Amino acid sequence: MKSIGIGLIGTGFMGKCHAMAYGGVKAVFGDVTTPRLELLCDLDETVAAQKAREFGFARWTTNWRELVDDPAVDIVSITAPNGMHRQMTEAAASAGKAIYCEKPLALTLADGIAMRDAVQEAGVASLTGYNYLRNPAVIHAKKLIDAGVIGRIIQFRGIYDEDYMADENLPYTWRCRIKDAGTGTLGDLAVHLISVAHFLVDDIAAVMGDIRTVHENRPDPDTPGRSGRVENDDQINALIRFNNGVQGTIASSRIAWGRKSYLQWEIHGSKGMIRFNQERMNELYLYEAGGDPAVQGFKTILTGPAHPPFGLFTPAPGHGIGFNDLKVIEVAHLLRGLEGRETLYPDMNDALHIERVIHGIIASSEQGKWLQP
Amino acid sequence: MKSIGIGLIGTGFMGKCHAMAYGGVKAVFGDVTTPRLELLCDLDETVAAQKAREFGFARWTTNWRELVDDPAVDIVSITAPNGMHRQMTEAAASAGKAIYCEKPLALTLADGIAMRDAVQEAGVASLTGYNYLRNPAVIHAKKLIDAGVIGRIIQFRGIYDEDYMADENLPYTWRCRIKDAGTGTLGDLAVHLISVAHFLVDDIAAVMGDIRTVHENRPDPDTPGRSGRVENDDQINALIRFNNGVQGTIASSRIAWGRKSYLQWEIHGSKGMIRFNQERMNELYLYEAGGDPAVQGFKTILTGPAHPPFGLFTPAPGHGIGFNDLKVIEVAHLLRGLEGRETLYPDMNDALHIERVIHGIIASSEQGKWLQP
Amino acid sequence: MKSIGIGLIGTGFMGKCHAMAYGGVKAVFGDVTTPRLELLCDLDETVAAQKAREFGFARWTTNWRELVDDPAVDIVSITAPNGMHRQMTEAAASAGKAIYCEKPLALTLADGIAMRDAVQEAGVASLTGYNYLRNPAVIHAKKLIDAGVIGRIIQFRGIYDEDYMADENLPYTWRCRIKDAGTGTLGDLAVHLISVAHFLVDDIAAVMGDIRTVHENRPDPDTPGRSGRVENDDQINALIRFNNGVQGTIASSRIAWGRKSYLQWEIHGSKGMIRFNQERMNELYLYEAGGDPAVQGFKTILTGPAHPPFGLFTPAPGHGIGFNDLKVIEVAHLLRGLEGRETLYPDMNDALHIERVIHGIIASSEQGKWLQP
Amino acid sequence: MKSIGIGLIGTGFMGKCHAMAYGGVKAVFGDVTTPRLELLCDLDETVAAQKAREFGFARWTTNWRELVDDPAVDIVSITAPNGMHRQMTEAAASAGKAIYCEKPLALTLADGIAMRDAVQEAGVASLTGYNYLRNPAVIHAKKLIDAGVIGRIIQFRGIYDEDYMADENLPYTWRCRIKDAGTGTLGDLAVHLISVAHFLVDDIAAVMGDIRTVHENRPDPDTPGRSGRVENDDQINALIRFNNGVQGTIASSRIAWGRKSYLQWEIHGSKGMIRFNQERMNELYLYEAGGDPAVQGFKTILTGPAHPPFGLFTPAPGHGIGFNDLKVIEVAHLLRGLEGRETLYPDMNDALHIERVIHGIIASSEQGKWLQP
Repeated sequence: MKSIGIGLIGTGFMGKCHAMAYGGVKAVFGDVTTPRLELLCDLDETVAAQKAREFGFARWTTNWRELVDDPAVDIVSITAPNGMHRQMTEAAASAGKAIYCEKPLALTLADGIAMRDAVQEAGVASLTGYNYLRNPAVIHAKKLIDAGVIGRIIQFRGIYDEDYMADENLPYTWRCRIKDAGTGTLGDLAVHLISVAHFLVDDIAAVMGDIRTVHENRPDPDTPGRSGRVENDDQINALIRFNNGVQGTIASSRIAWGRKSYLQWEIHGSKGMIRFNQERMNELYLYEAGGDPAVQGFKTILTGPAHPPFGLFTPAPGHGIGFNDLKVIEVAHLLRGLEGRETLYPDMNDALHIERVIHGIIASSEQGKWLQP
Repeated sequence: MKSIGIGLIGTGFMGKCHAMAYGGVKAVFGDVTTPRLELLCDLDETVAAQKAREFGFARWTTNWRELVDDPAVDIVSITAPNGMHRQMTEAAASAGKAIYCEKPLALTLADGIAMRDAVQEAGVASLTGYNYLRNPAVIHAKKLIDAGVIGRIIQFRGIYDEDYMADENLPYTWRCRIKDAGTGTLGDLAVHLISVAHFLVDDIAAVMGDIRTVHENRPDPDTPGRSGRVENDDQINALIRFNNGVQGTIASSRIAWGRKSYLQWEIHGSKGMIRFNQERMNELYLYEAGGDPAVQGFKTILTGPAHPPFGLFTPAPGHGIGFNDLKVIEVAHLLRGLEGRETLYPDMNDALHIERVIHGIIASSEQGKWLQP
Repeated sequence: MKSIGIGLIGTGFMGKCHAMAYGGVKAVFGDVTTPRLELLCDLDETVAAQKAREFGFARWTTNWRELVDDPAVDIVSITAPNGMHRQMTEAAASAGKAIYCEKPLALTLADGIAMRDAVQEAGVASLTGYNYLRNPAVIHAKKLIDAGVIGRIIQFRGIYDEDYMADENLPYTWRCRIKDAGTGTLGDLAVHLISVAHFLVDDIAAVMGDIRTVHENRPDPDTPGRSGRVENDDQINALIRFNNGVQGTIASSRIAWGRKSYLQWEIHGSKGMIRFNQERMNELYLYEAGGDPAVQGFKTILTGPAHPPFGLFTPAPGHGIGFNDLKVIEVAHLLRGLEGRETLYPDMNDALHIERVIHGIIASSEQGKWLQP
Repeated sequence: MKSIGIGLIGTGFMGKCHAMAYGGVKAVFGDVTTPRLELLCDLDETVAAQKAREFGFARWTTNWRELVDDPAVDIVSITAPNGMHRQMTEAAASAGKAIYCEKPLALTLADGIAMRDAVQEAGVASLTGYNYLRNPAVIHAKKLIDAGVIGRIIQFRGIYDEDYMADENLPYTWRCRIKDAGTGTLGDLAVHLISVAHFLVDDIAAVMGDIRTVHENRPDPDTPGRSGRVENDDQINALIRFNNGVQGTIASSRIAWGRKSYLQWEIHGSKGMIRFNQERMNELYLYEAGGDPAVQGFKTILTGPAHPPFGLFTPAPGHGIGFNDLKVIEVAHLLRGLEGRETLYPDMNDALHIERVIHGIIASSEQGKWLQP
């Protein structure tokens, strides 16, 4: 396969991110199939036309079904609102297309299951966009863990906080409604954290959650003096246990002032500890037990060419990659997966495991007891 | 009262810490009653004599009951092993002495209740040594919270980790046995974290714990090839709810490689966030919402004379106080409390609340459900 | 102008960086002229062909003069070895092309002057690639300074350290020879620091340097047992004074173990301080004098959409941009400059000011006195 | 010698610091001669009496000559204004007393020489109070350097900044006058930095300074609308060379907003780097070259019992010592020096070397050339 046709649904935050990644991946990675930017979809005709020009797509449409069925499109990238993921996935699967869908899968677990089933039945490849797993720092953390550098894992603690809803006077929007947005911080943020936990430790086997809507009412932007009731979670805390028996905690908030992309985790081992924080995404912190206690301490490791695929971006260590570069790496993984060189992870089945966890957290929070997701 | 007689039981880690604090408090604080170092107790005669000389005590004894009953002793400082706290407290209370006892209260909740009852019935003053509450940074955090600088509290997350038991080949000792040590990380470390949570937020009203002995067997130092079974907790995680409804998490480990005094907490508010870490005990981190987003960020506040009683140690901001200075502040609080100028906190009743929480964590962990401590 | 033809000389570290920037700039910035990747030059035919395919260039050549003269090429990007910059610039200027040349200008000051003269005489536009000036954090620092947030500037201190030559057993290479590499750390690293100083404070008016070749001999890779004499600077320190009278220091080393991209500077003002470190390129540190001393401290500002053009990369604050994104911003500046919307800075004349400073540092170091560069 | 008599002149910032150190050293160190707090001197009778009571001195006086001549006084601690140091030292030396004098020696180099000569002629022991040299972190840095952990030293960079004069509207005081205060930031701050450089690297052999009075006039507190001319240095920068040929820079400011005790230095070696910052005085940063590049990074070492004499303060690593504890260590060194167990450093001759450097910086700044101090 010399090139592969891309159809992209969505031109917003993640739509642009996908477009930049497809546009840049060949120059960075060199040895991957060349993405051909075939067709871009946006509901607004002016936007679709303009963004196609800017992103370098050959054609545009306002009808996503047209895109899904277009014979020149091999991969369908879905960055539309979460409520659309299911029908787009089902249509793309029916059309036999590979599917690259942003997280979370869907608004409900039932929809997620339907999506997983659709791709499995159609036998099409899928990848979900969890962004943070292929950071060279994270990949290296996994290597260190697998090599036993920190011994056996004994604890996982993770946090993912942002503050995009922290202002309690922000207006009531679709984000506050279950039928439009599904969960709150769980689907927006916590799923990322869970994806990292699954990637680095093991799948989560049991959860004991405590979720909370803190800012219960937000001002109705349309009717002064009225407010709307927020239906989904602002803050979540959970005790967790992994399949391998390891204990842990996760916590996430969309109302944590000062936190912008605070995807922070630490993995305790019997011989050391590894820590990471996405807000300093080019650093990895490692403590190795042993040796002279007078020179023991956490190392701040700046990522560089010693942490593939960093060196494909720049041969200079410590020079730093950015958020969008993570998506380039994810797209390279997608292309290699489709070439059969790598196993796509997390595909829609893996993503379903992640979403079972968030729904398990909700249920265990309601029931006040441990549940298996 | 021009001076006050001190009797100190114990000359180890915390015994020396008490001695240094009594010896230094008058020079630092000036306006407190002068401690008179009357009597020092250690079971070993040589140690008792030598330490009395070094610490500046007038006399020494190997019999703690003698100390408790000595008419020149007004305050009994208890830094003996936790299993001795109850009988020493009961004797000192009977003798009408003020009691300054290191945390935790006792090995069992029953003993803790007995101690609380003893001081209340005898009508003697008590203070428990929780060390970290009177750090100028922590006191200032409380002021900021009380002044509404971060709005209303919406979340508490706390960790207290050390690594003194992290090496799984450390020999089996009394610390591993419930009858000698009581709980593990709960009584050693988590109680400090809970004391901070109670001080800054509110008393904890409900807990959902998950505790674990990770290194289940440790080598028997006396019989090569044999090992002893560790009975108490290495790692604890818990979901918590405060009386005022605030949600939170606490986690603590005595086996967290690289952590030396990682008493770290963050308090999320509706208008900002405050963070602190005892490993950088002279810093407080504050994020205040509002204003130009282009210059928003966490401030690293170095403590100084603007944060009383820092200025009594040195008038130079950022010059730093140390762990032992925290004990000097605690002793000043004790002396002022006995003069009626401050309300002693946490006294044995307050300490009992803290210990109810750790026993609640154990019970909820066993029962797999939320409990009220 | 709907599109503009790009000719790129070089496919190594910075060649690839230019290619990625040209390839990505339209998707990120939207409103700039679309770069048309016309012609790529590399001396090696296989490399040229392969990289043209990967980078998306329409054609390739092994003859840079052919590229310079190609009528479809509007901008000549020069990322060839520094010793080639002069003749390439002169040829491109003669051909009437806009020139985008990597720093430093040339091996000698005379060559730099010739380059500046060539572009001025030909009346062609030029931009030199100083990478770090258009980081949103740095641009925001300039805004804060210009707005008087830190009062008037009273001090500049800067460091640029890396460790790519720190190993004293690294073999002797062309980098060690003046005729091949020109200066050492001065041309590689210090020029970046000076570019920032000129951008944020003012042009440097006087220097007092102290330069040193620390690892004087390096093993000859071709003849075991022999070594070659390093001719250029490993470490440089200098006192500086700016045109506006401000005092400062600069220091730079290519042999500073542990430093990977430590371009660190601090600007002291009469009302505050701003600090930055490229190794944490998404953070800016600001201290503003005044207000309650109890809450004063350096703020860690995470860059985001409030710091243009960050938002064009991602609308999510704190998510981080990377080194290559800085080049995308630089290329956007180039394109806008050629459209007449921005003034190109630093052009070759500005770059010459920078290089006069490094040659002034060498001369003042030799003469042991202050010199005006 | 079972005990040693202390006479302390001064009860302010450093006077109190000396008093606390004498009062605490025996409890901490155990094996040192016991200081007997004999006589305290303050010009103000009320202050003298009150502070003697608080600090635990047996007697007080308002006449320092009486103190110097008191037969029960063995050590004279001088914490009076710098302008008094010479006559006090000369009198104490004549009286045959050991002298513990705060830095800097004197207002002028001539006075410093006279002091050094006085103690040498009288054959009395002396120690100057440079505070920061005996931090366990700094002592450990010296051990690492001496053990060759970072190879041979190739660079020293140091900064000492505070902001106690940063507000340009602070009133004109004696601190601004050469005849009352001598130098500015040089004598207040830079001398500390030089003491560290001498301790860790070697004596400084040549300097090239650039000093500046930035806030040239300050409001006269007595006459509204008038101002006084500041005579001494606000900011100093200098290139330096050590006796052993190592190159370096030092910089110091008393007007650096946000800096509270920013005594920061870094020592580059041929095999690694060590860094330290007094604002985080319980941390040492170490980078060791070699090994797998994927796990290289600066280690943050928290001081503990592995770094003597930390363990005498507390057996718990990472629990932190404070500024006043540094003085306790310095006093232990003094006592041990007088017992003949350690060599007092820096004595008045060593201090004179330090002060020659600051006067060399002034002269080289005026002459615009390198000077040997």
